[in-house]
Amino acid sequence: MRIARYIPAAGGDPAYGLVEGEGPDAVIVRLDGTPFDGIQPTDERAALADVTLLAPVEPSKVLCMGRNYAEHAKELGNEVPDIPVVFAKFSTSVTGPDSDLLYPALTENLHFEGELAIVIGRRCSKVSPEKAADVILGYTVANDLTLRDMQRAEKQWTRAKGFDGSCPLGPWVETDIDPSSLSLRTTVNGEVRQDGTTADMLLDVAGCVSWVSQTITLLPGDVVLTGTPAGVGSLQVGDEVAVTVEGIGTVTTRIIAG
Amino acid sequence: MRIARYIPAAGGDPAYGLVEGEGPDAVIVRLDGTPFDGIQPTDERAALADVTLLAPVEPSKVLCMGRNYAEHAKELGNEVPDIPVVFAKFSTSVTGPDSDLLYPALTENLHFEGELAIVIGRRCSKVSPEKAADVILGYTVANDLTLRDMQRAEKQWTRAKGFDGSCPLGPWVETDIDPSSLSLRTTVNGEVRQDGTTADMLLDVAGCVSWVSQTITLLPGDVVLTGTPAGVGSLQVGDEVAVTVEGIGTVTTRIIAG
Repeated sequence: MRIARYIPAAGGDPAYGLVEGEGPDAVIVRLDGTPFDGIQPTDERAALADVTLLAPVEPSKVLCMGRNYAEHAKELGNEVPDIPVVFAKFSTSVTGPDSDLLYPALTENLHFEGELAIVIGRRCSKVSPEKAADVILGYTVANDLTLRDMQRAEKQWTRAKGFDGSCPLGPWVETDIDPSSLSLRTTVNGEVRQDGTTADMLLDVAGCVSWVSQTITLLPGDVVLTGTPAGVGSLQVGDEVAVTVEGIGTVTTRIIAG
Repeated sequence: MRIARYIPAAGGDPAYGLVEGEGPDAVIVRLDGTPFDGIQPTDERAALADVTLLAPVEPSKVLCMGRNYAEHAKELGNEVPDIPVVFAKFSTSVTGPDSDLLYPALTENLHFEGELAIVIGRRCSKVSPEKAADVILGYTVANDLTLRDMQRAEKQWTRAKGFDGSCPLGPWVETDIDPSSLSLRTTVNGEVRQDGTTADMLLDVAGCVSWVSQTITLLPGDVVLTGTPAGVGSLQVGDEVAVTVEGIGTVTTRIIAG
């Protein structure tokens, strides 16, 4: 099942919907309410191409694993951490799966980081790895955009990782997929820059949910980012960066003059 | 004006209200809607003593200044930072002004940090220090509870500072006060442990709002914590910790067995 959030072609309030089919024939079936109260399809259908997809959920917070792929930790000159690193993004960080980003002020080194994102389905805390599947609604794709120079200058990464628009998410939540070995590819202007697999995560999906939830309660729609493989790099005005996770889809961001 | 959020004596949904008067004669006047849409008092009044005060706002996020008092930075063996340190707490961190906290798991060193808290009144970003007053609704009191051992072990402070219940807030938002030189006192079981003044903040209130908002949009009800003076220390099960800021009020937390 693919759960999206969208603005209908006729405008109006955002709605959740199920995406059915592929390519130009894909349709979206409007849901009654949210997917967190049970999936209740309505009779309202539209061509997917006619609606505007939003980020598929509205997280109260996005908790993110740092240095969760060994090759990525090394490429930035960091050790693989003994203890997982967790940082945060905010509701104000989240943008849609096909969106523009004004090149941020206060940086000269905006970086992309393609990631698999976990979407939490119900309120939970102190989740054991064995029980993590019970609290996960599904998976989506994220770009953990980073002000790399600010991240290096500031002891805590809050401003450098949590800035407005730093978390493109989408295109939908895929509920029926095994996340343990998915190809993850990031391109910039069509050129492949990251070509990894989620099989290389140090702490797996269940481990990530368990780790962050040991002290912090997760709410329905909250998102956990699982870290990025090697190949991160800079973006310039005019670039188009696209992150694709196998079996889920692609998040595209265009960098425009700020 | 003192703006509180409370559960009426008869129960029901939380409401905002204005607190009028002091001591046993204080009353609370219910507001229509939220204080972010203009202050609209109703005819509904109750004795303050008969209602249950909640945290005075429901922040989407709490952004916090670290090491913003020189003497506190030194007492933990840290340098005064060249660049301000910003970390985060979450909606799930916030608790009321008179509440119990289960002693958290995964720590053997729960610390108190009494702080002045800034409450944001309207959506804003890239606020200059000169314009900060325009976006501030008022001030309240916070305890920046910290898992000190976890904070020291983990590179980013997200789990150690953002845990559930880590941000007692209240008792209300005081809108008519000059925050530049207020006494700030923390007691544990009645014994004074922190006795500082907001005049010793390295980055003042306007500077804090400006700094965090340069990359992160602030929403109505969001909270900015301004750092803690010297004197922080450990809490044990059975302790009652109380933070008082002159002219605003007191936040009290009782540590109970987890």
